[in-house]
Amino acid sequence: MRLKELLFGRPLRTDEERVEQVGIATAIPVLGLDALGSASYGPEAAMTALLALGMLASHYIGWITGAILLVLFPVFLSYLQTIPAYPQGGGSFTVARENLGPFAGLLAASALSVDYILNAAVAISAGVGALVSAVPFLLPYTLPLCLAILILLTVINLRGVRSAGVLLLVPAYAFVGSLLITVVLGIIRVVEAHGHPVPIVAPPRISPSVQTASAWLLMRAFASGCAALTGVEAVSNAVPVFRKPKVTLARRTLTILIIILSILLAGIAFLARAYHVSATAPGQPGYESLLSQLVGAVAGRGIFYYIALGSVLFVLALSANTSFAGFPRVCRLLALDEYLPAEFAHRGSRLVYSCGILVLALFAGLLLLAFRGITDRLIPLFAIGAFGAFTLSQLGMVFHWRRSREPGARRSMILNGLGAFITGATLLVLTIAKFSEGAWLVLALLPPLLFLFSRIRRYHTNVEREIEEQGPLDTSNLSDPIVVVPLKRLDRVGRKALRLALSMASDIHVVQIMAEDMNIDDLKSRWHELVENPVQNLHRRPPVLTVLPSAYRNFFGPLIGYLKELCRKNPDRHIAVIIPELVERRWYHFLFRHRATLLKTLLILRGGPPIVIISAPWYVAKAAKREAFAG
Amino acid sequence: MRLKELLFGRPLRTDEERVEQVGIATAIPVLGLDALGSASYGPEAAMTALLALGMLASHYIGWITGAILLVLFPVFLSYLQTIPAYPQGGGSFTVARENLGPFAGLLAASALSVDYILNAAVAISAGVGALVSAVPFLLPYTLPLCLAILILLTVINLRGVRSAGVLLLVPAYAFVGSLLITVVLGIIRVVEAHGHPVPIVAPPRISPSVQTASAWLLMRAFASGCAALTGVEAVSNAVPVFRKPKVTLARRTLTILIIILSILLAGIAFLARAYHVSATAPGQPGYESLLSQLVGAVAGRGIFYYIALGSVLFVLALSANTSFAGFPRVCRLLALDEYLPAEFAHRGSRLVYSCGILVLALFAGLLLLAFRGITDRLIPLFAIGAFGAFTLSQLGMVFHWRRSREPGARRSMILNGLGAFITGATLLVLTIAKFSEGAWLVLALLPPLLFLFSRIRRYHTNVEREIEEQGPLDTSNLSDPIVVVPLKRLDRVGRKALRLALSMASDIHVVQIMAEDMNIDDLKSRWHELVENPVQNLHRRPPVLTVLPSAYRNFFGPLIGYLKELCRKNPDRHIAVIIPELVERRWYHFLFRHRATLLKTLLILRGGPPIVIISAPWYVAKAAKREAFAG
Repeated sequence: MRLKELLFGRPLRTDEERVEQVGIATAIPVLGLDALGSASYGPEAAMTALLALGMLASHYIGWITGAILLVLFPVFLSYLQTIPAYPQGGGSFTVARENLGPFAGLLAASALSVDYILNAAVAISAGVGALVSAVPFLLPYTLPLCLAILILLTVINLRGVRSAGVLLLVPAYAFVGSLLITVVLGIIRVVEAHGHPVPIVAPPRISPSVQTASAWLLMRAFASGCAALTGVEAVSNAVPVFRKPKVTLARRTLTILIIILSILLAGIAFLARAYHVSATAPGQPGYESLLSQLVGAVAGRGIFYYIALGSVLFVLALSANTSFAGFPRVCRLLALDEYLPAEFAHRGSRLVYSCGILVLALFAGLLLLAFRGITDRLIPLFAIGAFGAFTLSQLGMVFHWRRSREPGARRSMILNGLGAFITGATLLVLTIAKFSEGAWLVLALLPPLLFLFSRIRRYHTNVEREIEEQGPLDTSNLSDPIVVVPLKRLDRVGRKALRLALSMASDIHVVQIMAEDMNIDDLKSRWHELVENPVQNLHRRPPVLTVLPSAYRNFFGPLIGYLKELCRKNPDRHIAVIIPELVERRWYHFLFRHRATLLKTLLILRGGPPIVIISAPWYVAKAAKREAFAG
Repeated sequence: MRLKELLFGRPLRTDEERVEQVGIATAIPVLGLDALGSASYGPEAAMTALLALGMLASHYIGWITGAILLVLFPVFLSYLQTIPAYPQGGGSFTVARENLGPFAGLLAASALSVDYILNAAVAISAGVGALVSAVPFLLPYTLPLCLAILILLTVINLRGVRSAGVLLLVPAYAFVGSLLITVVLGIIRVVEAHGHPVPIVAPPRISPSVQTASAWLLMRAFASGCAALTGVEAVSNAVPVFRKPKVTLARRTLTILIIILSILLAGIAFLARAYHVSATAPGQPGYESLLSQLVGAVAGRGIFYYIALGSVLFVLALSANTSFAGFPRVCRLLALDEYLPAEFAHRGSRLVYSCGILVLALFAGLLLLAFRGITDRLIPLFAIGAFGAFTLSQLGMVFHWRRSREPGARRSMILNGLGAFITGATLLVLTIAKFSEGAWLVLALLPPLLFLFSRIRRYHTNVEREIEEQGPLDTSNLSDPIVVVPLKRLDRVGRKALRLALSMASDIHVVQIMAEDMNIDDLKSRWHELVENPVQNLHRRPPVLTVLPSAYRNFFGPLIGYLKELCRKNPDRHIAVIIPELVERRWYHFLFRHRATLLKTLLILRGGPPIVIISAPWYVAKAAKREAFAG
């Protein structure tokens, strides 16, 4: 128990939940980390898609970034509308379900869950990518490093929301600060050098172009770069987290985030072009991330370089945290609507949805393993889910405003409609550009997910209808159960079971299975003396003994046959099987004493309605000495 | 069920056990496989130890084989004595325990179990070594091939003794036949060529000597070659398997085996020297086993080569079967004396000791994995256990004859004493020569094994003393139990549990835990109407309802606190906790419905003597429709 507390902290009472209401300064790292962090992997992904262009890549990055910013702006305006409309938090699931019906909601939730899982994997591997750029000898350890960070994040998130928040503050501001300084410093150098700056640390030589730019290549680069836009929805999902005036603060936070993101994206594109920096092949020796090259070129490899790259590493890895915040909440909403088992809605001892966190960690870990921890192979799968959810959410908002009678609803509807159109169009581009690279997988995942969710829901509804019963308790036909006690010998363990049987029923059947290996004596010879006689002295019906041979040395078979026969003869009565069980209160108990456990499992699964299973534990001395429930 | 029968055959009744009484012709493959098979890996192991001598190695192999034969002869005579003395089967454990006391018996059993595990691994990897010699492109698949054969042997042995026996006949005689032919043919060729035969297929060129022969090197080669002597004890262990006259047939079988083994060992040494054949580095490209080189040199690579090498492969791999026959029987004897859990003495549905077979397969598999399937690395660990058991067994026989008054007992004592001395001396040489190569591991394993066995024994004795009770059943103070029913809501599942409670006791406590996520209504408001009233109408005491809040959203904590309090207030009564449980009769039942399973486990392990656990399963419609025990 102590190890558990050390790792996960002490349990929290439900009333200890203080909504950590935050202001803008805290909200930017907590809610903006994913959006800001994607500024570092978006441009990199776009330029990696242009690898085949060699030197030419840096000429096109400006155009691609421009296109990305053109998508960003209406998305931003659109979410500005969502915030006041859903001050209780307008996640895509909620907005889509309320305005477009349950199917649209489920679709948004499925897309989002896929996206959150991908985001966790992409963010961690991008962080590790930054690390191995700075410390190249770590390159062979990419995958173990990714998994270590995943485990760390899982533990931190199981500890609770607050410990995650504390972790984010410093790296988030160090990241924004150092990247802004790099951009400003770089622009100054470029201006001073009349557009031809000399890099302090020269970026790796770029291989000559093997291909010319085609519309298809640029479209794919744009699609990859769109990963930079994920995370923008976080603020509108989390309006209740803000201090009052919630809506105002949320809108201001979103505005500041978008401004910073735009500056970073534009600045990186400008500097990449001015310094002729291009992407290097990921996962290959000599790999160096775009940001590492840029910061090195602008500011050299001094302390500033390590602070900047260190903060990139942290922010990227921690932006996986957005998934840890979002995924369990989506699962919870699904569980509350019975699309998932109730466990997903149950908050663990630290007030977080532990079940969702663990499922996320499992899937993200599998992804990292499958792709061996290299971001670039994961990116094709990424952003489809996010843009799907964006589009559904915006579309939901359009319908929301159509029904609204608020002043300005028309203007809001147009803005959200524009957002829906642009995100929808981007989604289309994404899907086409990346279909063959793996986007089909995301699309192929959606139908089975939808099917699974609705099957679980239907199952829940069926079971609930089945077990529903109103009205007073039926107290007719309360006959006492027939008790069956399988006995090996008449030791203390068996005697306890037999006494228990005598204390709860009058109709008792004792069964002894004679299997060759058990090395036991037939109870028959002394039954009268040992059992029948003392019970008859109480003027009660004595237990009936049946000795069964076991031709196949199998203990369970003959017992089940016996019970089946008993059920058939007494169709209206419960058959209570008392299982004498020797217990050591140790973890290895089930390793050694599994016969009783097996029997109980078998009876539960194969027994059927008339069978009731009673465990009569007998504790070996050391265990018994400890008080009951001593822990 | 059908897959299981296909793999393992139909269950066998206990009375279907016919001791497969065999004659000499069948006994040679069944009992002699290990001894004969070791003729192929013993010389190879000795020559591998001489690798550093290059060309010189083949000059020394004659001397080393001579020394091995010098050990073999007294061991043979000694076992000839053991057979008539223990016609019921004189395994080392039995002989040592009966004559030298339980500790010596345990020591022999431990040494033997270690040896059996090593033998299974060595034999399989030697077989695969033969295969990859013949088919070199399989070399990279050494480990998977080893594991596949291990799994095959496990399945065959789980099927039962008879199927294993059938498998052995053909390859055993093909092996003996083709090796004898090779030896004879080779000798003819050598004589014809006046001592300088020309190999038909030239063996690989031998690297020049990097070292000169030292006593130490030769001693190590001898120690490695002693692996050829393992398996000799099999006949004397298994006298009951023979037809009458058992003892005569057994002695004759042993004699024939030893003659064949001696001819093979001597012949191989002679040919290796005449053809200048030496070992090649195992696990390296260009590796070719000694026998493959010899057969190729003598007879070329025609059909005969493939028959010979094929039979070597089969015999080696199947000589692992000796372990599968021996190890489970040693475990059984240990379990009968309570040194191991009773499961090891339980015969499975096919009349074999499945538990021991599985444990053997597990450990042999781990060894193969750890050594990546290369025999040579396993050989240093090998034979120490066997010679330890040999020595103890012979020593036991010495004491046996000392107490015997039979005529000739003195002569037998001397023969066994000689055997004990020689095997003991060989054991010493083995230990010294191979200590640094891994023999220390075998020796280091023995004390913990002995400790484990005696701890298990002591534990069993303690528990048995504790649960032992004579005399008639105590029927005093048979007060009916207090029944506690934890209820979530009053649905059909809960109602079944409540009716069960009413049918078996009068003192019923219902507990409702209010945990935030459970989305449930307080039962209090309608308790009177739904439950109290109908029960009072029967003139019975109605169940008492307690609603407990759960500050930590934990369901188990408050319930256990409540039970603890109840135990404290009613120290003399049983508390029966009825757990309402929704059951689907599917394998995934425990995946979804684990809350009830968890609660039962928790109550068993932490509950203590007064607590009794009752499962009241309620079956969802589809499951309930199927009849009870429908399977």
